[in-house]
Amino acid sequence: MKKRAAPAKALAAEIPDVVIQRLPLYARTLNLLAKDGVEVVSSFRLGELLGSTPAQIRKDLSYFGRFGKQGTGYNVAYLAGRVKQILGLEQEWPMALVGVGRLGQAIARYPGFAAAGFRMAALFDTDADKVGKRVEGITIRSVEEMPRALKAEGIQIAILAVPADRAQPVTDLLLEGGVRAILNYAPVSLKVPPEIVVRSIDPVLVLQSLTFYLNNHR
Amino acid sequence: MKKRAAPAKALAAEIPDVVIQRLPLYARTLNLLAKDGVEVVSSFRLGELLGSTPAQIRKDLSYFGRFGKQGTGYNVAYLAGRVKQILGLEQEWPMALVGVGRLGQAIARYPGFAAAGFRMAALFDTDADKVGKRVEGITIRSVEEMPRALKAEGIQIAILAVPADRAQPVTDLLLEGGVRAILNYAPVSLKVPPEIVVRSIDPVLVLQSLTFYLNNHR
Repeated sequence: MKKRAAPAKALAAEIPDVVIQRLPLYARTLNLLAKDGVEVVSSFRLGELLGSTPAQIRKDLSYFGRFGKQGTGYNVAYLAGRVKQILGLEQEWPMALVGVGRLGQAIARYPGFAAAGFRMAALFDTDADKVGKRVEGITIRSVEEMPRALKAEGIQIAILAVPADRAQPVTDLLLEGGVRAILNYAPVSLKVPPEIVVRSIDPVLVLQSLTFYLNNHR
Repeated sequence: MKKRAAPAKALAAEIPDVVIQRLPLYARTLNLLAKDGVEVVSSFRLGELLGSTPAQIRKDLSYFGRFGKQGTGYNVAYLAGRVKQILGLEQEWPMALVGVGRLGQAIARYPGFAAAGFRMAALFDTDADKVGKRVEGITIRSVEEMPRALKAEGIQIAILAVPADRAQPVTDLLLEGGVRAILNYAPVSLKVPPEIVVRSIDPVLVLQSLTFYLNNHR
């Protein structure tokens, strides 16, 4: 029980990042099980569903306290609620999107974000031709307005979908506006202070690791 | 030198997956250094550029043989070439895209793939209204034609951008057509045999791990 009593800051520091990155998958899988009326699930079954081993499942979940009862498995509803709580998914998170080009528009219109509690709250673009236009009922504003607007609207999460060469200056403006977490679609590594979290989605890098396996005939 | 002499199959088996997933970032960073005229780079500098430690860099690269000379660092051109070779990036890879909706169109038109040696070779959709239309000069075909077309065109890599409920049946058709690597944008876990490599890009899952850090005040 010691872990549960620890302050949140210490919690974040002691859990390996790979575990944090797997937790949303746990949340999704547990929600699907709950929808199917499943009340109790074993680490074996969770392993099957997540493409992992029962030992890995037990180890991952042990970071957050004792959930399972030996021999009976995990209570699905309780575990789902607890993972949601740990991930901070009990609240709605407003997000800003910077870059409303082809990819940005697909992102702005993706219904999966709102369904998961992420509300697209603000759109920005560096292109003057796009400023003032509306996408999904939200008016695109200029990046110059961004720092003040982000602060005023209390937005801490941004999605970056600008070309590579604009990514760093736009990031600097996001940080000026108080953004603390960035989902980066631009194919560059962003320079940010250590307390800022950045995750990058770069399909080319993913494809390049796939070809390793094709090339090595796994 | 033992590692270099090992057959490719053994090579793929012994390198941790997390290392493989980092290699494309090495390739990108080394290419940028080479473009900037840098001839030699230390593990310290590579660590800075990759957001990693010098020890981690040396460990990662040690899986592929001895690259660095003690005290002098890595030869950028040689290391870039070797990483490219290991990843199988010396050839062009034709790809199929299934699902030409909003996201699929952004993917079909993204110039970054071709620049990295991934050629969009075929488009498919489950929607009869889209079949026959052209995107970037490629005619969209029906998924029923997919298995035969993929075999005929020797396509081993597919990008999946269909809605969640179509993902598994489309995947089965991809495998029937001989596809061995899938980049999955649908928010579901695909069931595939162990020899097939799947990587998923799901921005919601990424956002849900970002909120952990916001919630825990890293």
